[in-house]
Amino acid sequence: MPERDLAPHPTHRLSTRRTTVLAVAGLALALVAACAGPPPGQQPVLSVEPGDTEGVIAARGLTPDDVYAAVKTYTPTGQKDDYVLFASGGHSGQVLVIGVPSMRLLKVIAVFTPEPWQGWGYSDETRAVLAGGDVHGKSIPWADTHHPALSETGGEYDGQFLFINDKAQARVAVIDLRDFETKQILNNPISTSDHGGTFVTPDSEWVIEGGQYAAPLGTRWASLDEYEAEYRGMVTFWKFDREAGRIDPDRSFALELPPYWQDLCDAGKLVSEGWIFCNSFNTEMATGGIEDGRPPFEAGASQRDMDYLHIIDLVKATELAAAGRTTEIEGFPVIGLDTAVEEGVLHFLPEPKSPHGVDVTPDGGQLVISGKLDPHVTVFGFEKIRTAIEEGNFSGTDGYGVPIIDFDAALVKQVEVGLGPLHTQFDNQGYAYTSLFLDSAVARWSLGNGPTPWSLVQKIPVHYNVGHIVAAEGDTVSPDGGYLVALNKWSIDRFLTVGPLHPQNFQLLDISGTGESMRLLYDMPIGLGEPHYVQMIEAAKLHPWEIYPEIGWDPGLQAKREGAPENGDERIERRGDTVEVWMTTIRSHFTPERVEVKKGDHVIWHITNIDTAKDATHGFALPGYNYNLSLEPGETTTLEFEADTSGVFSYYCSEFCSALHLEMTGYFLVEG
Amino acid sequence: MPERDLAPHPTHRLSTRRTTVLAVAGLALALVAACAGPPPGQQPVLSVEPGDTEGVIAARGLTPDDVYAAVKTYTPTGQKDDYVLFASGGHSGQVLVIGVPSMRLLKVIAVFTPEPWQGWGYSDETRAVLAGGDVHGKSIPWADTHHPALSETGGEYDGQFLFINDKAQARVAVIDLRDFETKQILNNPISTSDHGGTFVTPDSEWVIEGGQYAAPLGTRWASLDEYEAEYRGMVTFWKFDREAGRIDPDRSFALELPPYWQDLCDAGKLVSEGWIFCNSFNTEMATGGIEDGRPPFEAGASQRDMDYLHIIDLVKATELAAAGRTTEIEGFPVIGLDTAVEEGVLHFLPEPKSPHGVDVTPDGGQLVISGKLDPHVTVFGFEKIRTAIEEGNFSGTDGYGVPIIDFDAALVKQVEVGLGPLHTQFDNQGYAYTSLFLDSAVARWSLGNGPTPWSLVQKIPVHYNVGHIVAAEGDTVSPDGGYLVALNKWSIDRFLTVGPLHPQNFQLLDISGTGESMRLLYDMPIGLGEPHYVQMIEAAKLHPWEIYPEIGWDPGLQAKREGAPENGDERIERRGDTVEVWMTTIRSHFTPERVEVKKGDHVIWHITNIDTAKDATHGFALPGYNYNLSLEPGETTTLEFEADTSGVFSYYCSEFCSALHLEMTGYFLVEG
Repeated sequence: MPERDLAPHPTHRLSTRRTTVLAVAGLALALVAACAGPPPGQQPVLSVEPGDTEGVIAARGLTPDDVYAAVKTYTPTGQKDDYVLFASGGHSGQVLVIGVPSMRLLKVIAVFTPEPWQGWGYSDETRAVLAGGDVHGKSIPWADTHHPALSETGGEYDGQFLFINDKAQARVAVIDLRDFETKQILNNPISTSDHGGTFVTPDSEWVIEGGQYAAPLGTRWASLDEYEAEYRGMVTFWKFDREAGRIDPDRSFALELPPYWQDLCDAGKLVSEGWIFCNSFNTEMATGGIEDGRPPFEAGASQRDMDYLHIIDLVKATELAAAGRTTEIEGFPVIGLDTAVEEGVLHFLPEPKSPHGVDVTPDGGQLVISGKLDPHVTVFGFEKIRTAIEEGNFSGTDGYGVPIIDFDAALVKQVEVGLGPLHTQFDNQGYAYTSLFLDSAVARWSLGNGPTPWSLVQKIPVHYNVGHIVAAEGDTVSPDGGYLVALNKWSIDRFLTVGPLHPQNFQLLDISGTGESMRLLYDMPIGLGEPHYVQMIEAAKLHPWEIYPEIGWDPGLQAKREGAPENGDERIERRGDTVEVWMTTIRSHFTPERVEVKKGDHVIWHITNIDTAKDATHGFALPGYNYNLSLEPGETTTLEFEADTSGVFSYYCSEFCSALHLEMTGYFLVEG
Repeated sequence: MPERDLAPHPTHRLSTRRTTVLAVAGLALALVAACAGPPPGQQPVLSVEPGDTEGVIAARGLTPDDVYAAVKTYTPTGQKDDYVLFASGGHSGQVLVIGVPSMRLLKVIAVFTPEPWQGWGYSDETRAVLAGGDVHGKSIPWADTHHPALSETGGEYDGQFLFINDKAQARVAVIDLRDFETKQILNNPISTSDHGGTFVTPDSEWVIEGGQYAAPLGTRWASLDEYEAEYRGMVTFWKFDREAGRIDPDRSFALELPPYWQDLCDAGKLVSEGWIFCNSFNTEMATGGIEDGRPPFEAGASQRDMDYLHIIDLVKATELAAAGRTTEIEGFPVIGLDTAVEEGVLHFLPEPKSPHGVDVTPDGGQLVISGKLDPHVTVFGFEKIRTAIEEGNFSGTDGYGVPIIDFDAALVKQVEVGLGPLHTQFDNQGYAYTSLFLDSAVARWSLGNGPTPWSLVQKIPVHYNVGHIVAAEGDTVSPDGGYLVALNKWSIDRFLTVGPLHPQNFQLLDISGTGESMRLLYDMPIGLGEPHYVQMIEAAKLHPWEIYPEIGWDPGLQAKREGAPENGDERIERRGDTVEVWMTTIRSHFTPERVEVKKGDHVIWHITNIDTAKDATHGFALPGYNYNLSLEPGETTTLEFEADTSGVFSYYCSEFCSALHLEMTGYFLVEG
């Protein structure tokens, strides 16, 4: 207990009440309010009659711009959003699903972190998926999700799958967008962190996972004194089997990279399909040590003017991997750096230092990079790069022998956009948009084939410290334009204070017009994680299930499970010390309602939700035994556990299903 | 893998694109759209110029009512909401914080379930708080949170604390609203489930936790054949120590109740202060057994026309507890049922069967109850109840000897409101509001001292299957009116489909007017839990910290921690096999940046965030070692663990803090 109360709770009992105002509220007052407007900082929202739109506008002090934004984003009951954002949840380890333009959170998809509402990590099947992400045999039930990638067909989002990485532990997850559930988690066997993932090739054949902080591959120990010799970067190419809905680790491989810190990657498209681009920082190979008087990483990794854009020929790399030109590290095939250099798989291109992101234009022809300490965006031409490689137009090699393409040979243009440029998106009008961290702004600028070639068009403030941005279908070969979302890392004064941990702020911008017409539409607080990146897909491209296709559905198999209990199959069987239960759930009862075992029994418990109505989900909470399931209509599951605690436990439906939902329960009796 | 693909992903590559429309978009088209309106189901939102409010209204097909709702709820950047909702997250185990009228999710407060963005359950201190909720020595890292209760002073919310229960495991948590963090979790030692909690007395001296499914007290086993003799209900009175900010279990006690299933409780206020009311169902004492041809609980627990409202004299009960008139069960003092009857602590009052909730009117004078299979609300008078008790006006006793007050002696009025009435709230105009589950509606009706005494005024549809409702400050002695939120359990067709698990739907209603003026304002999808109940407090009453008051702050103590590292204290010390680290974090580096240990070492690692800027939170991710911290400005923490895995692990800041955030990292090297 505190010895002194430094910051006591306030002792005043009540703030000023509005009851007096309310008592005399009426049309007359509303009209006065409408004419006078509210005093600054006060919003007498209750002082106008219901339905009096003009009165509310006046009373709440809304400007014409506010009213425009209100009608542009407000989505009446039953009307659907036009776009869907899939946002990483940062170190929440989850994915957020958000509707645009309403900016309403439609769902949190549990991925790396257990989430009991969905039963994620509280059933045996989902625990097995999570166990795929075990690190050195340890369960690590959190992640730092960074970059979601929607599956693509022909460079367009196809609405089928979503991939996402865990920066902290170098893991990758696969989500099926039929049921919005995670199906697979893989732990990168050779790396301890990643950042340049996930990104997909235009037909989702490969899911890219680039590294972050260099370490000995295979996660063994080596002294920092041996950094240049023993530490390495990497990029991993995970082979995606679309029919199975899974990454196939047996057909995947990695590429060893120098111990620079790889940052973000993007896949080529159209003319550049088959190439992968990753930027990097800390080509200084700083190893920190502020405590011993060495420069801290923030300085040590920022000394050189240029870092290296990594240019990877994926076609050649896959040929090498297929030909067995790999070394096994932790049983995983890795193309060695020497082989990559020898075979021309890897080239470098100087890029302004410490950039965050490389973004391929929709036509695949150009790469946009922003050194975050340089006020310009730098645009390289893919054909220029390829020509330089073919002609051997190199300015030298790095310390690991990787050829460095001549900067001027690859450069198309540099455009000054503002301070702290980070990440670039594209629309359908020839504009590009770059987030400016230090300016807390988004810059609209014209590409070479845009309305006003290579010029800054408009900068719009955002609040505050914007990281990534996303435009509608902005990573595809045909962006839609219309909307852009700024992922602001700090919100500071934008929302009511909810303690020292402030929400992030997603701001929706209207980019539907031309020229200097960008407008701020909406502030969405994000108080359940810190999203890094997000993709925005046209809602019409998603075709999720409203219920599972058949009774007895196994979401792991995405098929009906043999032997799943159905109506009439319910029973309890004892075989020695094993008790097996076949249960069904339907509004509003479980069958059976009594399950009686002895302490020490092994229990196998199958449950199917045989309801078929949309939204007729049943929960199954088994208190004290750490099971909490969400059984959507048709879904089946099997629990298997030891009855190690005696007592009386009421299992019950934890998802409100009917007027008699509270009565939907049963007794699990463990004698002994 | 599935043998057949029963429900394949759609094979069409792309939906119709809007690029053609966009190419010709302009004012002309906008005007056409504004006149014609869009075809049903289509919203060509991109076909008007930015800033053209009328054009957007027409293009999006908004009605005048929609525009009213839009301007009533839209909250421009930097403007703050007027009210704050604290909603249970249902079986997510968390609490949701939502602004009104914008209906934006400001924060998820982690309570029973680990949540890594907040570092909740990923630091040693927060793991210790969670361990307070261990059940039979088992960690149960989820909960079914039901009923949040804001602390009160004089029957008004005071904005200091929030309490919430876990129905599944009979646990109670305390949240401090200075930093919006959970400070305490307690496991009820005598019960396995709760439902009638949490509710507070008007000065928050007691936090009430009523039971749910009957079981032997103390959680021992007993056969269902001995249900009437061995199974029991309960209500627990947790003593809250406001100064300490904790429940004091040593000054708490429980009351044994018959094995009916207690449902919801409410505390008396003003004239009824000192009394506690809990309703109940399954006074039939059904034990289920559909599998053996017995009636399922849904029928067995619904046979009698009346259940029992439990009327508890808390003043007498506390006197008995203080006098030691208790029995110890699992070391916890329990007033036995016989003692309660003998001393007049407990009385019953018949209530229409299977009600959900008992709600005390703001003046404390009446109790509103809705049998959910009866279209009426039933209003009892507190003075009538007290008189009946004093005069012994009983219709008999139940099987356990509890006196049953004569129904007619206590009845004030019954008002027909509609099908499936559940829960009632109050405003400042003399209206009451009752949710109607089967009607999917909210009824406004007039109390006896309201505008049109004892009459139904308006029913407004909600979507769908409404459970609880909440009005602004609706549980206090002086509700504000203005807004009401309906917690709809099903959303079905209201939002884009996000898989078979649909969101819930919070609908905001405008109740500021009189008569039939209620309006629907906003649909908020809840896609991260199923809230049961919520309370709505005036935002001005909350005074949370924006940063911690001092550098080195321990949120567990809510005081500065002795010995927490500050600027200049950074060091690493080895004592035998123990390595102790004093670290600070500030934009944008850790000090130290290298921590080198040997496998098997015991590591003690103190970290303080010495940043003092608002929102300058630093994360601390230690990959592979399952730590992920959120260190808000000033916060300190200590980790203690065995270095059991060798390798190179990059710790890093997981909360984007500056332009050089990615460089904020260090190496944890475990040799061996």
